[in-house]
Amino acid sequence: MIAKRMLKYVEGSSVTRAMFEEGKRLASLYGAENVFDFSLGNPSVEPPLAVKEHIIKILNKLPPNKIHGYMNNAGHEEVREAVAMSLNQKFETNFDKMNIIMTVGAAGGLNVILKTILDAGDEVIAFAPYFGEYNNYVANYDGIMVAISPNIPSFQPNLEEFASKITEKTKAVIVNTPNNPTGVVYSEETIIKMAKILEEKQNKFGTAIYLISDEPYRELAYDGVKVPYLTKYYKNTIVGYSYSKSLSLPGERIGYLVIPREADDFENLVNAATIATRILGFVNAPSLQQLAVAECLNETTDITTYDTNRKLLYQKLTTLGFECAKPEGAFYMWVKTPNQDDNAFVAKAKEFNLLFVPGSAFMCPGYVRIAYCVDQTMLKRSFASFEKLAEAMA
Amino acid sequence: MIAKRMLKYVEGSSVTRAMFEEGKRLASLYGAENVFDFSLGNPSVEPPLAVKEHIIKILNKLPPNKIHGYMNNAGHEEVREAVAMSLNQKFETNFDKMNIIMTVGAAGGLNVILKTILDAGDEVIAFAPYFGEYNNYVANYDGIMVAISPNIPSFQPNLEEFASKITEKTKAVIVNTPNNPTGVVYSEETIIKMAKILEEKQNKFGTAIYLISDEPYRELAYDGVKVPYLTKYYKNTIVGYSYSKSLSLPGERIGYLVIPREADDFENLVNAATIATRILGFVNAPSLQQLAVAECLNETTDITTYDTNRKLLYQKLTTLGFECAKPEGAFYMWVKTPNQDDNAFVAKAKEFNLLFVPGSAFMCPGYVRIAYCVDQTMLKRSFASFEKLAEAMA
Repeated sequence: MIAKRMLKYVEGSSVTRAMFEEGKRLASLYGAENVFDFSLGNPSVEPPLAVKEHIIKILNKLPPNKIHGYMNNAGHEEVREAVAMSLNQKFETNFDKMNIIMTVGAAGGLNVILKTILDAGDEVIAFAPYFGEYNNYVANYDGIMVAISPNIPSFQPNLEEFASKITEKTKAVIVNTPNNPTGVVYSEETIIKMAKILEEKQNKFGTAIYLISDEPYRELAYDGVKVPYLTKYYKNTIVGYSYSKSLSLPGERIGYLVIPREADDFENLVNAATIATRILGFVNAPSLQQLAVAECLNETTDITTYDTNRKLLYQKLTTLGFECAKPEGAFYMWVKTPNQDDNAFVAKAKEFNLLFVPGSAFMCPGYVRIAYCVDQTMLKRSFASFEKLAEAMA
Repeated sequence: MIAKRMLKYVEGSSVTRAMFEEGKRLASLYGAENVFDFSLGNPSVEPPLAVKEHIIKILNKLPPNKIHGYMNNAGHEEVREAVAMSLNQKFETNFDKMNIIMTVGAAGGLNVILKTILDAGDEVIAFAPYFGEYNNYVANYDGIMVAISPNIPSFQPNLEEFASKITEKTKAVIVNTPNNPTGVVYSEETIIKMAKILEEKQNKFGTAIYLISDEPYRELAYDGVKVPYLTKYYKNTIVGYSYSKSLSLPGERIGYLVIPREADDFENLVNAATIATRILGFVNAPSLQQLAVAECLNETTDITTYDTNRKLLYQKLTTLGFECAKPEGAFYMWVKTPNQDDNAFVAKAKEFNLLFVPGSAFMCPGYVRIAYCVDQTMLKRSFASFEKLAEAMA
C-alpha cells in the first residue's frame, strides 16, 4: 500500500541492507575489530573542539527562544551574513546575506535548489562516476538525469560528450569537486572550458543552465591542490555546501546554498528556494547548529589524518598491483577492479572481511570506492586482508 | 528561469512577505512595543531548563563522533527505543524502536510519509479549517487535496461530508488535534465514528486509508481535556509528532513518525519512510537534538502561561462582542469576523497595530486566527487596540 514509485527503492535498498547485515554478521563471527568497513563516508576525525565550546557558550549566553526558535526560512540573518563575509574573505567574492540560504546539509540544499528550478521533463547533467543519490534527488522533481560517460583514467569531466548532450531542456549540471567517489579535483583549466561551453549553449538555446556545485569536500584537499570557487568562472553557478566533512558534523544536517546576485532570475531563485525550504518540510536549517557553525567559520577538522591514511592506502594498493589514481581530495580511493565485475570483486573482498562500495552504485562499473575516513590502526590492521585479496585475484 | 510550478508560490508568498514588511514598518513608526503581532505560532514560553542541561551533559559525556555523526536514517536506535517506551507508558501502546522514525520536525515527518504513500492522483482528505501547508505537502507528491467543509460552530470534523468524499483513490486523511487554527480537540466520540467510517470504506474499496495524525500540539491541552491517542482507535493511523511546541524547539526541527505494527503493509511503510527520509535530503533528524529530546521525554514547557493568555484573551474578546469558541488546546483563538470578509477585517485590525492571519489561509474565510503564544504584558497592552477595533467594527 506504499506508493508504487517507492517500491523500486525498497527493493533496491534491501541489497544495501543485506550488506549492512552481512557486516554485522561478520563482526559477530570474527569480532568487530577484524571487520574492515571501508563502505561509509562517515568522518573518523573528531569535530574541532571549538564546536563544542561554542555550542556551550551559545547555550549560556543567548536567550533560549532565540537559540531554538523559528527564524526566517532562509536562516538566521546574522549567520547568513557571517557565512557571506567568510566566503568573501576566502575567495574574493562579493556576497551578502541575501546570497546565502542555510540548509539541512548539502542533501537538503540540493533538494531545495532542484525543487526551485525543475519542471517535469527538465534535464540535469552529471559526470559519471557520481554520487548515486543525485538520481533520486532529480527524480523527486520529475527531472531527467543525463549521465556523461567517465573519462578514464583522469576522471576529469568528459567535456566533448558534455557539450554534445546539452539540449534546450538542460536546466542544470551537477559537479562535485573534490569528487566522491574518485577523489579527483577539477582543474581550473577544466572549469574554464566547462564555463565556456555552458555560456555558448545558453546563448544558442536562449536558456539559463545552472551549474550546481556540490561541495561537501571543499576543505579536504591535499598536496596544496587548488579547488577553484566556481561562481567566479560562471555566473549561473549555485553552490551547495555542507559542514558534514569539514567540521565532522554529518548527523547535524547543516550547510548552505550560495545563489550569486549575477545569476539569471536571482530574486525569484532566492524567493523560490526559501519557499522550497519551507514547503519541502525542512522549514529551516537546525537553529543551534546554524549559530554554532557561524562561530566556527575558520575551523576545519584535522585533515592530516585523512592525508596520512591516503598515503598509506595508496602505497599499499599500488604495491599490491591495484590500479588507482592518487586522489587529490575527499577521503575516497577509486580502484579499478582486476576484472570488469565490480560486484564480484566486492563479494570477493568480503571474504577477507573488507567492505567496499561497487562502482556501479556511482554509475561506473569496473571500479570500487574505498572510503579511508577510518581509524588509522584499523587501516593498518586491514592490510593483511588487502594482501590476501590481491593474491586471490592474481 | 525558476520552475513554472514554483512561480505561483513566489507570487503568493509576496503577500505574506508584504505583511511581514508591514509589521516591520509599523514597528519603526510606532515602536516595536506598540505593534501586536498575533500572526505567528512561535512559542513564547522558554524550553524547560532540562533541554540546555542535557545538551551540555551530552557534549561533555559522549564521544563527539557519536554526538554529531551519521546514524541509521531512521534515527539513533536508543533514541527511537526511548521514544517508544515513553509512548507506551503514556498511552498504553505497544511500540518499540521499529515503530519510530525520527524526523526533521512534524513538517519533515509529514513530507516523508506522504512521499512514502502517494502516487500521482491519489487523494488526501483534510477538514477545513486546516493548516495551509498541507496543500503544499500533498502537491509535492502529486497528490490531490480534498477539503471537507467546516462544521460551524463546533469545528469538530463534518463526518457526513467526510464519508461521502472518500473514494477508491483516497490514500490518506490528515487530522490535527488539538487543532491549528481552531484550538478544538477532537472528542473520543468523534474519533470512534471516524474510525468506523474509515474501516467501512476500506472494506468497501479494498484499500488501505492511512489516518495521519499531525500532533505538534498534543501536550497543549487545557481544562483537563482528553486528547485520544489515535493508533488505539484505528490501526492504519500514522502519528507525526514534533517537539516544536511541547519543548519550545521549533527552530531545531526535531520530531518523529509512529508507524504501528498493525498498519497495513507495515514493513514496506517503515522501509520506504526510512528511504524517503534519505532521498528527500533530510538524511536524518539532527543528531544532537535527537539525543537531547530522548533525555527530556517527560518534560514540557510551562503551558500555564498559554492557559492564562487563553483565558484573558477569550474573556476580552467575548466581552467586546466577538464570537469565538473557547479553545481547548493549542495556542490559537479562532474568531468569527463581524462581516464575512476576513481579509478586510485583518486590514482593519492592522490600523490598530493588531496582526492576525485571515481564515482564508486555512481554507475557511470569515474567521481569523489569533495566536496567543505571546508575551503576557504585550497581550494586556494590546487590549486597548482590541477595544478600538471592536468600536470600529460596530
